[in-house]
Amino acid sequence: MTSAKRFNGNLMDQFLKNGRSIILAYDQGLEHGPSVDFDNRNVDPSFIVEIASKGGFSGLALQKGVAERYYDGKVPLIVKVNGKSNLVKGEPVSRQTCSVEYAVSLGAKAVGYTIYLGSEHEAEMFAEFGKIQEEAHERGIAAITWVYPRGAAIANDTSKEIVACAARTALELGADAAKIKYTGDTQSFSWAVRSAGKTKVFMSGGPKAPTNDAFLIQVRGAIDAGATGVAVGRNVWQHAEPMKMADLLRQVVFENLQIPAMSKPAA
Amino acid sequence: MTSAKRFNGNLMDQFLKNGRSIILAYDQGLEHGPSVDFDNRNVDPSFIVEIASKGGFSGLALQKGVAERYYDGKVPLIVKVNGKSNLVKGEPVSRQTCSVEYAVSLGAKAVGYTIYLGSEHEAEMFAEFGKIQEEAHERGIAAITWVYPRGAAIANDTSKEIVACAARTALELGADAAKIKYTGDTQSFSWAVRSAGKTKVFMSGGPKAPTNDAFLIQVRGAIDAGATGVAVGRNVWQHAEPMKMADLLRQVVFENLQIPAMSKPAA
Amino acid sequence: MTSAKRFNGNLMDQFLKNGRSIILAYDQGLEHGPSVDFDNRNVDPSFIVEIASKGGFSGLALQKGVAERYYDGKVPLIVKVNGKSNLVKGEPVSRQTCSVEYAVSLGAKAVGYTIYLGSEHEAEMFAEFGKIQEEAHERGIAAITWVYPRGAAIANDTSKEIVACAARTALELGADAAKIKYTGDTQSFSWAVRSAGKTKVFMSGGPKAPTNDAFLIQVRGAIDAGATGVAVGRNVWQHAEPMKMADLLRQVVFENLQIPAMSKPAA
Amino acid sequence: MTSAKRFNGNLMDQFLKNGRSIILAYDQGLEHGPSVDFDNRNVDPSFIVEIASKGGFSGLALQKGVAERYYDGKVPLIVKVNGKSNLVKGEPVSRQTCSVEYAVSLGAKAVGYTIYLGSEHEAEMFAEFGKIQEEAHERGIAAITWVYPRGAAIANDTSKEIVACAARTALELGADAAKIKYTGDTQSFSWAVRSAGKTKVFMSGGPKAPTNDAFLIQVRGAIDAGATGVAVGRNVWQHAEPMKMADLLRQVVFENLQIPAMSKPAA
Amino acid sequence: MTSAKRFNGNLMDQFLKNGRSIILAYDQGLEHGPSVDFDNRNVDPSFIVEIASKGGFSGLALQKGVAERYYDGKVPLIVKVNGKSNLVKGEPVSRQTCSVEYAVSLGAKAVGYTIYLGSEHEAEMFAEFGKIQEEAHERGIAAITWVYPRGAAIANDTSKEIVACAARTALELGADAAKIKYTGDTQSFSWAVRSAGKTKVFMSGGPKAPTNDAFLIQVRGAIDAGATGVAVGRNVWQHAEPMKMADLLRQVVFENLQIPAMSKPAA
Repeated sequence: MTSAKRFNGNLMDQFLKNGRSIILAYDQGLEHGPSVDFDNRNVDPSFIVEIASKGGFSGLALQKGVAERYYDGKVPLIVKVNGKSNLVKGEPVSRQTCSVEYAVSLGAKAVGYTIYLGSEHEAEMFAEFGKIQEEAHERGIAAITWVYPRGAAIANDTSKEIVACAARTALELGADAAKIKYTGDTQSFSWAVRSAGKTKVFMSGGPKAPTNDAFLIQVRGAIDAGATGVAVGRNVWQHAEPMKMADLLRQVVFENLQIPAMSKPAA
Repeated sequence: MTSAKRFNGNLMDQFLKNGRSIILAYDQGLEHGPSVDFDNRNVDPSFIVEIASKGGFSGLALQKGVAERYYDGKVPLIVKVNGKSNLVKGEPVSRQTCSVEYAVSLGAKAVGYTIYLGSEHEAEMFAEFGKIQEEAHERGIAAITWVYPRGAAIANDTSKEIVACAARTALELGADAAKIKYTGDTQSFSWAVRSAGKTKVFMSGGPKAPTNDAFLIQVRGAIDAGATGVAVGRNVWQHAEPMKMADLLRQVVFENLQIPAMSKPAA
Repeated sequence: MTSAKRFNGNLMDQFLKNGRSIILAYDQGLEHGPSVDFDNRNVDPSFIVEIASKGGFSGLALQKGVAERYYDGKVPLIVKVNGKSNLVKGEPVSRQTCSVEYAVSLGAKAVGYTIYLGSEHEAEMFAEFGKIQEEAHERGIAAITWVYPRGAAIANDTSKEIVACAARTALELGADAAKIKYTGDTQSFSWAVRSAGKTKVFMSGGPKAPTNDAFLIQVRGAIDAGATGVAVGRNVWQHAEPMKMADLLRQVVFENLQIPAMSKPAA
Repeated sequence: MTSAKRFNGNLMDQFLKNGRSIILAYDQGLEHGPSVDFDNRNVDPSFIVEIASKGGFSGLALQKGVAERYYDGKVPLIVKVNGKSNLVKGEPVSRQTCSVEYAVSLGAKAVGYTIYLGSEHEAEMFAEFGKIQEEAHERGIAAITWVYPRGAAIANDTSKEIVACAARTALELGADAAKIKYTGDTQSFSWAVRSAGKTKVFMSGGPKAPTNDAFLIQVRGAIDAGATGVAVGRNVWQHAEPMKMADLLRQVVFENLQIPAMSKPAA
Repeated sequence: MTSAKRFNGNLMDQFLKNGRSIILAYDQGLEHGPSVDFDNRNVDPSFIVEIASKGGFSGLALQKGVAERYYDGKVPLIVKVNGKSNLVKGEPVSRQTCSVEYAVSLGAKAVGYTIYLGSEHEAEMFAEFGKIQEEAHERGIAAITWVYPRGAAIANDTSKEIVACAARTALELGADAAKIKYTGDTQSFSWAVRSAGKTKVFMSGGPKAPTNDAFLIQVRGAIDAGATGVAVGRNVWQHAEPMKMADLLRQVVFENLQIPAMSKPAA
């Protein structure tokens, strides 16, 4: 009996430094629309691509169109291969908009795919990711999934149980890494990390927090729970001083900087 | 006139010992979510993979992601090639998440596919399994189906009639083995076994029973009804002493250990 | 201008004796479930396969799973390539579960496909049968369709008009033979036969009739109307003496045995 | 810059005589059912195939099954590659039942495809015809579309505006010819003909008219409006003397026979 | 690490003169129907094709059928590869009717695809455009998207926010150019242009404006906002003097002609 021949457990290695990672995410222009998240500065992808390399990020996640027009090859690229606007209401579904082959041609070292766990269209996304995951591995790149529990069936998408479901789904479907929401505390998030097993966990950065510490304390909590890192967008490129936030993030994630307990985010 | 050229009646042989079999199933992390079925011990796939070989199991059923990261090649592998979360309500459907080719590359000697018989999406799963069954046989591995009658049309999924439907569906669609629920007694289950004909029947282990005997008496009943064996998960890896339960299972299935009649499960 | 190159009008020849035919059908285990139609004797496919050859049947219709495990090569095989359970309610649809290539590998000389004419899913079955018919002809085997008008739009599926629709649909879509329900009398059924043109018509046997004559008078009527034969299941293998019924059928179909007029089925 | 390489503007030529054409259509057996349109004479496809050649028709439109069993190669063949029964209610859809390759193998010089313009399923038929049109042109045969505005959104399918929509759709989607309904007068129909541009327009014959002139005056009106010809079925093969009607049609279409104004159809 | 290999930022160059462009659009025959937008003059595609070259247009957008029958190779061709009628109500969807390969064979230097952003069918169009965009780039032609926010979820399809969403979607999905509606003023439209980044923006001409200036002031505003140009149909070929309007458009777009402020369109 032979064990698996195809799987390469090191596909995420190029996104890691001492086993930790900070990914800069910038697909909000499609997902939220430019008027919600962008200003005259960060509406320009060049601004973000520059932050990625100058800020010492471990990876950069872009949709195909932005990648093919702006990516400079300096930071390992993740091409998001599905997406949707937030204009459509009802049960969410996001379909493949970029082939794995095309992503590789753009320089991608990983593909990213969003699964709306619990949506009525979950089955369609499971099936689509199933093919993408296999093609990614056949082409020697990582398959990362953004697992977001969403839809009428989901009462609370940051509960310990639901976030653990998201993490586990990533492992079971063969994702090399999962981007999931933070549960709010280290203890509950560590259950999600355990549930993900060998699939690396990235905390989703979410909307801009009111203060640096309000955000960094979440990152600290996720890392302490065993997460590999964070996939962050708005908390960096909406920041008045993105390089300062990048510096802080690197300290928290790579150098174990502690965040003062008093600066907890408001409940 | 020539009879069939392709069919190999021995595809299940590597999962059998003297015609009997005990399969360890571990796809609950996807199907139920980690918080429902797992604790800190069994959330770790390594724990289960070790039980499979040390406990003398005949096969191990995993989703692709777990198989490619944890499978050690010691016990014949079944890769489950579809799956869903239990968050979505309504008529159940489970779509293919793993190709047969990929399953083979992971070392699979069989693929497993769940059919929700009686669901409004039954036709879609019949069609998908139809292709998987053929590709499995073309690649020389077995096709096993988990046949679970479910949906608004199903009043009682353990009635003699419905379980026999499940068993027969597996035969008619060309499955080499069927995992079906126990009907509650040997006599009614033997009708399911007869209905399955040459398709081998595995009793589905189901949730953890309150006592060893409460579970084993079901296994005994299924074996006495002519079942090939049992596909069991929670009753082993949720057990305080998995090796003890594995030992008991082997005795019941392979050595015809009888279970005392007084320890019947509560009605 | 050249006429058609591909069509072979003799594809049904191996199912015919002097232009007549008796096909033994045994897909009820999937379509109705074993508890509705089977007993301990006929639940076993071996019992039916033996009847097929010993009873002098012209063909045997099986689902792929039964064919690949039980077919003995003695009687020309028809593999049913779609099917459904009767558990699902609503507009009926039956999807392809077996490729034509696979059917051929099992020894099939024809494929069978059910079309629920008038169902809201009719278009899907028309399209699927369209491909199957072409592949069957490319591989040199016959394409037979079971045309069953069914769904909310069908008030009476045995009226002269509806049965003629079924017969004509088979011709127009290129089926080499059609299995259709009997209208109840020779005169009205002859309109269906005329509507089918060169597509051979087989009367569907239906449920077990109360007496031999009650069934045979229908067969007689169909043959007198110009039908090629009958595709019969339950009236043979549910019969206390299947060989006796087979003998009677052969006499009616091949030797023009007349059935006494007094033994008409109850209206 | 190069203009189109693939397009052959002469694909309809073999259906034309001095730029005019009369096509005999016979797909009503599938579309309406035999009991609505057929009698003992015209239920037999041989009867129609003989009319096609003896009556001097320019083309013959048949479904694949009829073509492969009855077509005699004497008149250029159009194979209808989609179809439906009229039993199903709701928004109409007609799916492909015959591949272009198969149609060519049957001797087709053109494929015919029905589009229900304005149906909720319009998009599906647009997409399907898009592929068929391209494959037809790649194989060197014409693509003809029957454009029938139908569904809840269509109040009057013979208004000047709607018929012009049908004609224009055929041009825009690349059909070489369009079969459309008559608007009732030459002036309004000429707008449809202009809208179709280089796509040739065939008036749809429709149900049997009460008198010869009632039908022929429509044909005359369509030809005077610039139509290429007529695609007619019931007005020929339901006629007591099909050859007489064929003769009249040839005179009207090819020899510009005028129809007396007094014999207008009742309003 | 290598940057993208496949992307060619110059695919739109042949449609540009000094970085500006005027595209003549003529797919209204399919989208609106001939009776809404056409008269006896402009119903004839030859009239439009002649305007394109004589009027000095930078490109000409046609559906496949019109392109293959009328395109004269004088102006760079854009083939619209999806389309729908406006008869169907409900959430809009437009499916692919022309392959990229076929468009190229017709001489296309770009393909055009409409996305109804915010429609319930958005996901289907995102996925379809995703494939078209890649195939266009593989074949060395540009992919242009008409992004029209539409459906029950869209309250105002010319608001600054919604138009910016449309523009950004084109960039994120990898379109080389976007045709979007004008917001009504330069300032708000410049946000859309910024949101589109390196994706070139064409203002959609829309319905015939009451006066030349009423239209040209919009064009002027779009160009001043940074747009590459305008994709215009009705305001040219419905104009009494199309050459005069073409001349004015060239002056506004290529020579920066200013439009008097007093001739603003009515609010």
